[in-house]
Amino acid sequence: MIGIGLIGGSFAIDIKKHHSEAIIHGISRKEETLNKALALKLIDKKATLDDLVNADLVIVSIPVDATVKLLPIILDTISEKALVIDAGSTKEAICKAVEHHPKRRNFLACHPIAGTEKSGPKAAISGLYTGKTNIICEVEKTTFKLQEKALTLFTALGMRIRYMDAVSHDKHIAYVSHLSHISAFMLGKTVINKEKNERDIFDMAGSGFASTVRLAKSSPAMWTPIFKQNKENVIETLEEYINNLQHFKSLMEQDNFSEIFKEMESTNYIKEILNGIN
Amino acid sequence: MIGIGLIGGSFAIDIKKHHSEAIIHGISRKEETLNKALALKLIDKKATLDDLVNADLVIVSIPVDATVKLLPIILDTISEKALVIDAGSTKEAICKAVEHHPKRRNFLACHPIAGTEKSGPKAAISGLYTGKTNIICEVEKTTFKLQEKALTLFTALGMRIRYMDAVSHDKHIAYVSHLSHISAFMLGKTVINKEKNERDIFDMAGSGFASTVRLAKSSPAMWTPIFKQNKENVIETLEEYINNLQHFKSLMEQDNFSEIFKEMESTNYIKEILNGIN
Repeated sequence: MIGIGLIGGSFAIDIKKHHSEAIIHGISRKEETLNKALALKLIDKKATLDDLVNADLVIVSIPVDATVKLLPIILDTISEKALVIDAGSTKEAICKAVEHHPKRRNFLACHPIAGTEKSGPKAAISGLYTGKTNIICEVEKTTFKLQEKALTLFTALGMRIRYMDAVSHDKHIAYVSHLSHISAFMLGKTVINKEKNERDIFDMAGSGFASTVRLAKSSPAMWTPIFKQNKENVIETLEEYINNLQHFKSLMEQDNFSEIFKEMESTNYIKEILNGIN
Repeated sequence: MIGIGLIGGSFAIDIKKHHSEAIIHGISRKEETLNKALALKLIDKKATLDDLVNADLVIVSIPVDATVKLLPIILDTISEKALVIDAGSTKEAICKAVEHHPKRRNFLACHPIAGTEKSGPKAAISGLYTGKTNIICEVEKTTFKLQEKALTLFTALGMRIRYMDAVSHDKHIAYVSHLSHISAFMLGKTVINKEKNERDIFDMAGSGFASTVRLAKSSPAMWTPIFKQNKENVIETLEEYINNLQHFKSLMEQDNFSEIFKEMESTNYIKEILNGIN
């Protein structure tokens, strides 16, 4: 496991459940993270990149900028039979970073749509991936045997698999994930800026505010490189979102509340869409 | 109970729990709502405004524009001893509608910060108000006896009481509640507009998106009049929110990701604020 936070740690817990014989080695930049992961029994041993030569399976769940830098080095080091999977929220830059690597066929590009706003080893939980979608990109570039190995694991963990090209992944995920994070962060910022000297005011906040702003608890170290790598798509979603908000504001300024009613009514359609998402 | 949806119905359930002797009469514009409420045993009897003369307690939980129109008529009709409370998400217009009414002292202006994105009698649940904040405005305008009666009920239901003037209520609630709804509705609109022809894409949406967009399931009939009554405050929050989003977008366009990191890091402070909100 390279990176043993919420994503890597939750993989570790469920892999142990299905493969009690597995010996999980943890690699992290921070000694503190490794110690926490050991104490929580997420990993069996601390390791370094030099140990990768002995790995059967390498799961990379670190910020996407670190993945881009480290993935070629990982592929340099692993044995011919090892499978490397990542869990990054962007796919184009990561796939590009290893497109000409001689061991490209040992890598499977993945994005499990699972997670919470929490981070670090303590956030790892069993069952995080049950019933969740795992998006696999450029599957044809991975050897058949290693594809199969990965699918066996994902199936055991209860994941639904979807295949997609990396460019489409990054375009669509900007809408259904990256934009939500910015909308939550900026909502949090707006309210904090206004109300920071009036802590009492937050007694007025209910579960609706908590739900809408929840993603503003997310890790900046994880999200900054995602926005950087997916810059063009994210800017496009932001432009559309801002335009929609400005249109809503104009309708209010014009006292066009029948149109505001319609805006909300047509968006209620999200109910149907959300059925099945937890 | 005038209005027997999520808010009124949930009051009805818990009032029955604490006062099994209570006979709950339901009033609604829609016969269908009354029939549902009867079938769900939220109310004991159907009633009309003419029956208000016999009520001890009248709870008004209907859209805020309807409350502004109906509240003077309710006060005209009730007996001298009756207590009328509302549950509207705006307070200034509602208080203003009855400020000179001869029975102003029979009315207590309330806003229980409780609810979900659901609506209608079927959405009513027991315990909705347990541990929730109830904001009471202009308490001094209600007779002492009726204040006491209301507080006894709210305490039995497990609510925390906070007192506030109506103008401050409307200003702050725009930030911690009304803005969240618009941000969710416009997020939903942005994603639906982009992806409506690609239903598969919503398989890529995870719990983060679901949480951020949840309020976009809310009732337009309830929310349109709220935005109308709180127009000036809501427009102000929207301006600040749009400015913050535009600033974030500019930082991205300028590749100023160290500043983007700081934006998110300082907003992480929302964690502390949200502690205690469910």
